[in-house]
Amino acid sequence: MPGAGRAAGVRRLRPQPSEEPPAQEEDQNLLLAAAYVSDAQYNRNVPFETSPRAIRLYYFYNHWTMQVAIYFFICVDLSLALFEEPALFPLPFLATSLAEVLCLTAFFGRLVHFAKVTPQMVFWKDTKNICIMVTIVLTLIDLIIYGSLEAVNVHSVRWSRVLRPVFLINFPESRQIRRTFRSIRNTLPDILYVFLLFMFSVLIFSLMALKLFGDRGLKTVEGLPYFTNILDIVFELYVLVTTANSPDVMMPAYNFNWWYCLYFITYTIINTYIFMSVFLAVVYNNYRKHLKNEIRKLAYLKRHKMIEAFNILKVKVGTEFVVMEAQWRRLAKVVAPHISGPHLELLLRISDEGQKGHVDKVNFLRLADLLNIQVVTINVRRHPLEDWMPRVYRSSASLLVQRMVQHRIFVWVYDVIILINAIFIALDERNPFISYAEWLFLSLYIIEILLKLYTYEPRAYFDRRQFWNWFDTLIIIAALVATVANTTIQSARKYNSQQILDIVLILRILRLLRIIVSIQRFRVIVTTLINIGPTILTFGGLVLVVYYVFAIIGMEAFHGKVRFSDPNFTSPDALVCGNPALKDSAFARDRYCKNNFNDLASSFIVLMELTVVNHLLLLAGGFALVTHQVAKLYFIGFHIVVVILIVNIFIAFILEAFFVAYSLEKSEVETAIEKKIQELGVGIQEEEMQDGKLVDNVDAKDSGFSGDDGDNKRKDLKGLYFRIASKKYRTVDALLQQMFESEIAPEEEGPSLDEILNFSPGDLYPKNPNFENSA
Amino acid sequence: MPGAGRAAGVRRLRPQPSEEPPAQEEDQNLLLAAAYVSDAQYNRNVPFETSPRAIRLYYFYNHWTMQVAIYFFICVDLSLALFEEPALFPLPFLATSLAEVLCLTAFFGRLVHFAKVTPQMVFWKDTKNICIMVTIVLTLIDLIIYGSLEAVNVHSVRWSRVLRPVFLINFPESRQIRRTFRSIRNTLPDILYVFLLFMFSVLIFSLMALKLFGDRGLKTVEGLPYFTNILDIVFELYVLVTTANSPDVMMPAYNFNWWYCLYFITYTIINTYIFMSVFLAVVYNNYRKHLKNEIRKLAYLKRHKMIEAFNILKVKVGTEFVVMEAQWRRLAKVVAPHISGPHLELLLRISDEGQKGHVDKVNFLRLADLLNIQVVTINVRRHPLEDWMPRVYRSSASLLVQRMVQHRIFVWVYDVIILINAIFIALDERNPFISYAEWLFLSLYIIEILLKLYTYEPRAYFDRRQFWNWFDTLIIIAALVATVANTTIQSARKYNSQQILDIVLILRILRLLRIIVSIQRFRVIVTTLINIGPTILTFGGLVLVVYYVFAIIGMEAFHGKVRFSDPNFTSPDALVCGNPALKDSAFARDRYCKNNFNDLASSFIVLMELTVVNHLLLLAGGFALVTHQVAKLYFIGFHIVVVILIVNIFIAFILEAFFVAYSLEKSEVETAIEKKIQELGVGIQEEEMQDGKLVDNVDAKDSGFSGDDGDNKRKDLKGLYFRIASKKYRTVDALLQQMFESEIAPEEEGPSLDEILNFSPGDLYPKNPNFENSA
Repeated sequence: MPGAGRAAGVRRLRPQPSEEPPAQEEDQNLLLAAAYVSDAQYNRNVPFETSPRAIRLYYFYNHWTMQVAIYFFICVDLSLALFEEPALFPLPFLATSLAEVLCLTAFFGRLVHFAKVTPQMVFWKDTKNICIMVTIVLTLIDLIIYGSLEAVNVHSVRWSRVLRPVFLINFPESRQIRRTFRSIRNTLPDILYVFLLFMFSVLIFSLMALKLFGDRGLKTVEGLPYFTNILDIVFELYVLVTTANSPDVMMPAYNFNWWYCLYFITYTIINTYIFMSVFLAVVYNNYRKHLKNEIRKLAYLKRHKMIEAFNILKVKVGTEFVVMEAQWRRLAKVVAPHISGPHLELLLRISDEGQKGHVDKVNFLRLADLLNIQVVTINVRRHPLEDWMPRVYRSSASLLVQRMVQHRIFVWVYDVIILINAIFIALDERNPFISYAEWLFLSLYIIEILLKLYTYEPRAYFDRRQFWNWFDTLIIIAALVATVANTTIQSARKYNSQQILDIVLILRILRLLRIIVSIQRFRVIVTTLINIGPTILTFGGLVLVVYYVFAIIGMEAFHGKVRFSDPNFTSPDALVCGNPALKDSAFARDRYCKNNFNDLASSFIVLMELTVVNHLLLLAGGFALVTHQVAKLYFIGFHIVVVILIVNIFIAFILEAFFVAYSLEKSEVETAIEKKIQELGVGIQEEEMQDGKLVDNVDAKDSGFSGDDGDNKRKDLKGLYFRIASKKYRTVDALLQQMFESEIAPEEEGPSLDEILNFSPGDLYPKNPNFENSA
Repeated sequence: MPGAGRAAGVRRLRPQPSEEPPAQEEDQNLLLAAAYVSDAQYNRNVPFETSPRAIRLYYFYNHWTMQVAIYFFICVDLSLALFEEPALFPLPFLATSLAEVLCLTAFFGRLVHFAKVTPQMVFWKDTKNICIMVTIVLTLIDLIIYGSLEAVNVHSVRWSRVLRPVFLINFPESRQIRRTFRSIRNTLPDILYVFLLFMFSVLIFSLMALKLFGDRGLKTVEGLPYFTNILDIVFELYVLVTTANSPDVMMPAYNFNWWYCLYFITYTIINTYIFMSVFLAVVYNNYRKHLKNEIRKLAYLKRHKMIEAFNILKVKVGTEFVVMEAQWRRLAKVVAPHISGPHLELLLRISDEGQKGHVDKVNFLRLADLLNIQVVTINVRRHPLEDWMPRVYRSSASLLVQRMVQHRIFVWVYDVIILINAIFIALDERNPFISYAEWLFLSLYIIEILLKLYTYEPRAYFDRRQFWNWFDTLIIIAALVATVANTTIQSARKYNSQQILDIVLILRILRLLRIIVSIQRFRVIVTTLINIGPTILTFGGLVLVVYYVFAIIGMEAFHGKVRFSDPNFTSPDALVCGNPALKDSAFARDRYCKNNFNDLASSFIVLMELTVVNHLLLLAGGFALVTHQVAKLYFIGFHIVVVILIVNIFIAFILEAFFVAYSLEKSEVETAIEKKIQELGVGIQEEEMQDGKLVDNVDAKDSGFSGDDGDNKRKDLKGLYFRIASKKYRTVDALLQQMFESEIAPEEEGPSLDEILNFSPGDLYPKNPNFENSA
C-alpha cells in the first residue's frame, strides 16, 4: 500500500489556533495550509513533512517545470528504443547508453527530492519508490554487462529495456495510468476463473475436433493436413474465438459433411459470443466497483486535507472557529497566484455569504472545489466597428447583414455549399474548371468568417472556450495557407510537392467537418467524445506501456527474420520477405513483409494490427514459420492482455462515460458557484454566447445588476460578467466525485485516514440492491 | 398501442361484495377471479370479456394444448422454405401450398378464437391482429398469383414468404420477442444520429483515401487497382470497421510509404473502437431504460389484476374487506389445479399469518407471486438400504464407505481420473491398450455413481432440481449405451458406423465436463449462464426472424449462382463454383463454394458466417461478382441490422444479467415464502442438499420442529420439508420485477390502467442522478 503510512506524516503538526503566532510562523502556517488546499485542488495524495524546509521543497517538487522535466526524461528514455539496435535511426551504443544514464540520473534526482519531502517511513514503505530504485539498479547492471560484452564482441540481449515503462507508471504524476493498472489487477481474480473455464471449453472442443476430423484425411486450402495435431487445433480454435479465421477453419469439414458445421456454430456461440460477453461483463462490473471505491477515497482524502488546512488557519470568533477574510485572501493568492481580482472577489462573496469578514468551516472546505471551477471573466464590450464608426455599423444595410448572418438560413446555405464542395472533391481534379472551383469555395468560406466577425464581437467569438469557432477558423486558414503554398511551389518549380499536396488535400476534406457544427445532435455526440478525450489519453498511456513491453520482446525475438526490401515485389527475395522459410506461406502471398519487428515503429504497427485482431493467424503463422511454433504463444499472450483486458476496459470506460453524460443531460448538477453567479446577476449562459444573443442579454442584465441594493464591495464586480467554463471539460471522474461529495453532509468530517485508505469496494455495495441501482 | 383500449374490458364487471351471490354466480365469479390471478401469475396482459361464456373460452384459449398447436403450425409454416424451390428436400408446389393454406387456416382460427374472448373494440385496435390478418390475405393472394403463373409455366417470385415471421412475432404468446423488437425500435432514433455521424466520418475518410491513394497507381495483392473508385472505397472502409479486411486493405499504401499507416490507424481508432463502443453504449443505455419501463408496467398491471380479483371475492369482516379461507382455497385450486395439499397449506399459512380464517388484501395480492415460486416438497426418508438391511448399512465398513464418498478427497481423486482420461482421449486410439482403458474409465465412472447412490438417498440425489447430478448420470449412461452399441455393431458387422462412432466420441469427451461440477467457482459461472438460457432463447427467436427474412431474400437473389459439386475440387467447374465469373476470385480460391444461398440451411450458415463478420468482404465480393455490385448492399444491410443492433442488444442483455446476478450474490432478496419456511422450521438449504449434509441436518431439524408448540394445522406439514427451487431459475426480468415490486408499498393501488399503459422511460429517470445510480 503506497499510502499506508501517510497518516503519520499528515498528522505531525497541529497548530495552536488560540494563541497568536508570530509573523514568520504565520507565514509558515499559511504556506502549509496552502499546500494542503493545493493538494486537495489537484487530488494529489503525497504525504509530506511539515517542517518549513520540507514545505518549500514540496512546492518546488510540485512546480510545473519539474513535472515537465521529468516527463521529458521519460520520453527520452522510452524513445531510446528508436536508436538502439534494431534501430530506426541507428546511433552508436555509447550515445544511447550515455543518454540512458543521464535519464537514470534525472529519475534518481527526482526520487531523492521526493525522499526529502516525504517522511522517511512513508518513503520506504511505498512500493512505487522501491520499484523505481530497483529498476535504476537493474538498468545500470544491464548496461554494464551489455557494454563489456560488446567490448569483446559478444552480442547479448538488452533485457532491461522491458523495464523502462516502470518509470512512466511509477512516478506520482501518472496517477491515472496507475489507477487503470490497479483496475486491471483487481479484475484479474474474477476474470481468471472465467478465463480458465473458457480455456477448458476450448480444450474440450479441441479434443472433439481431433476425434471428429483428425482421421478423415481432410486438407486445408493450402493442402496441409486438417486438424491432426492437438496443439495446432487448440491454436486454431483459440484464433476462431477472435473470429480471425472464420469461416476458413470450418470449410474443409463443412465441404466434407454438411452436419459438421453445427460443431463450429456451437463453438462460436459458446466461446465467441457468450464467453467474450462474459469477459466484458466481468471487466465492466469490476471497473464500476473499483472506480466508485477510488472516487470515494479521493473525496474523503480531499475533505481530510481541507480540514487540516482549516485547523491550521482557524481562529475563534464568538462560539465558532472561522478563517478571517484577510487570511483567506492570502491563502487563495498563494494557492492560485494568477487568479484575477474580480474572480477572487467572486469566490469570497460565495464563501462569505453574509459578508461578516470571515469564512466559516463549511464554506472554507469548499475552497478547493471553487478554485477548480474555471471561471471566465468576460469584459462585455461593444463591437469595435461600432465604436469606430457607429453610423455605418448601425445603418440599416449593416443591420440587415447582421440579421442575415444570425439567421438559420445562413447556416443552411453554407451547409449546402459544403455538400457541393464535397461532390467537387470527389470529382476528377485535373479538370481546370474544378480546380478553379476550389478557389471559389475557399473564398466563400473566408467570406463567411469575415461576416461572422462583422456581426459578433471578435473577442467573444474567439473566446478561449469557443471550440467550434476556433475549429472552423483554423481549418479554413490552414487550408488557405497550404493551398497558396502549394500553388506557389507548383508555379515556381513546375512540380508538385507531394507532402504539401497531401496536406492540402486532407485540409480541404477536413473543411467538410464544419457541417457537424450546424447539426445540433451531431454537436452533442462530438462534444461528449471530446470530453472523454483526456481520459482516452490515459488509455493511450496504458496502451503505450503494454505495446512498449511487447515491442521490445518482439524485437528481440523476431528482428531481421522478415525483411521488406522491394516495394514492387519483383525480386524473388522480396517475394518471400527475404526468408526462404516463408516460401508459399500466406504471409508472403499477401505481401505482409512490412509487418515486421525490425524497429520500434514497425513493431508498434504490427501490434496495432494484432489489436484489431483480424489476420492474427496469418501474422502469428508467418512469425512462427521463421522462428518456432512457440512464437504463437507471444501472439496469444498479446491477445489476452490487450483484447480481453485492455480493450474491454476501454469499452467499459466509454459505456460509463456515456451513461454519466446521459444522466447529466437530464438534470444539471449545479454548483454553488453557478448559483451565486446567477444570484449576483453577473452570469452569462453558454448558449447565449453561441446563439449570438450575447449583446441583447448583457444589456438587459447590466441594468438589472446595477439596480440591486448598493454595496461597497459589489462595485468591484460591476461591468464584468462571469461564465462557468468547466461544463465542457467535465470528465467522468470529476463528475462522479462531485456527485459523491454532494452526498457527504457538509459538516461531516468523514472517516479517519486509515479507514479511508483501507476502503474496499465491498463496503460500498448496497446491502439490499434496489430497482434503481441494480439495473 | 395494442393495449390502449384494454381498460374498458377489464372494468366491465364490478361485483357487489356486500350481498351474498347465488351459488352459480359465485362459481362464475371464482372463475373470473382465477383468470385474473392466473394472468397476474404468468404476466399475461390479454384483456378479456367478463361474460361467463367468454371466460370459459378464455380458459380454453390459454390451455397449453392450444399454445402447442399454434407453435406447431408456426414451425410448419416457417419450415416450408425447406421444401419450396430452391429446396433442400424438394416437394411439389401443390403439397407446400396446401400445407401453407392449412397453417393459415389454423392462424385464422386462433384469431377468431381471440376475437370471441376479447372485447371488439380492443381487438380491432390491436395492431398485432391487423398484422396477422393482412399477412394471411397477402399470403393467399401471393399463392394464387404464383400458382396460376406456374400453371402457364411462368416463374415468378414467392414474395410473401418474407412475411412468415410475422406470425411468430405477433401471436400474443411471443411477448418476449416482441419486447426485444420494441427495444430495437425504441433504440433506433438515438442510434440513427450516431450512425449518420459514423457514415459521415466514413465518407470523409473515403474522400481522403481517394485523394491520397487514388492517383498513386497502387495495386492490391490481386493486382487490381487500389482505391480508385469512391464507391469501392466506401465499401472497403465500411468493411474495415468490421476489421474483416485489416490489415490487407492497408498493405499497398503502407508498402508504398510508411507514413500512410497513420491514416489507417486513425481510421481504426475513430471508427472501429470509438464509434462501435458508442453504438454499444447507446444500445445498452436504451435497453436498460426500456427494460425498466416495461418491468414497471408489468408490475403495476399485475397489481391491478390482483386488485380486480380481490374486489370480486372480497367480503366484509369487521372493518376490513377480506377473502374467506374457503374461497381462497377454491381459488388457488382453480388457478393451480396440480398444487399439492401440503404446498397449499404452506401458502395459506403464509397468507393468513394470524390464522384468522381469512386472508386480508395485502396478503391476497401476493398470491400470484406465491404461486410462482416453485416449492419442492421433500419427503425426508431414510436410505432404502437402511430400511431393507439396517445392520449391514449401519455397519462400520459401510459407514467408512459413506464417509469416504462424502469426503473432499473422493472428489479430487475423480478429478484426477478425469484429467488422465482427457490425456488418454488425446492419444492415439488405435492402440489397443488405450481402447481397453476406455472401458476402465467407464467402469470407474459407473462405480462413482453407484457409490453416491449408496451414500445418498436416491430420490434426493435425483431430485428434479439437482441439475448437476442429472447431468453427471445422463452423460455417463449415454456414453455407456453408445459405447456398447458401437462395439456390438462393430463386432457384428465388422465395420464402424460413422454416426454412432461420432456420437460415442463426443459423449466420451463431454464426460470431461464433470470436472466443472467439482470446482465451485466454475459451477457459479455455469449456473449463471444456464439461468440466462431461457432469455437467450428469446434471442434465438429474434435471430430466427431476422435470418429468415434475409435468407428468403438471399435465396431469391443468389440461388443457383454459386454451386458446390465436388468435395475434392478436382474438376475445373468445381474450382470456380460452377460459375465462370468467379475465376481467379478469392471466393473460389478459398473454396467457399458451399457458402451459397441454394437452400434454407445453407443460407442460414452463410448468414451465421456473416454475423461472425470475418471475411464479410470475401463473401460479399463473391456474390457481387456473380450478380452485380449492388449485391454488396445486402451484406452491409445485414451487418447493420445484425451486428450493430442485435449483437449489441445481446451483449447488453448479458451485461445486465451478470450485474443482476452479481448484486444478488452480495445480498439475497429473500421472499416472504422463504422466511416463512424458515420460521416454520421446514426448510432445507440448497447447499445442504448438495454437500451431503442432508441427512444429519434433517434429523436435527426434525426434532426441533416437533418440539414447537403444537397446533392442529401444523401437523399437516409435519414430516415434510420444503425447499425453494426458484433460485436457480430466476431470470433477469423476474428479478428486476421482484425488486421493483418490493419498492411499491403493499397498500398502494398503483396508477390507473391508462396511466400504466402510457408510461414512458423518461418518467422513470431520476431527476437528480446520485452516486449510487449513476455509475
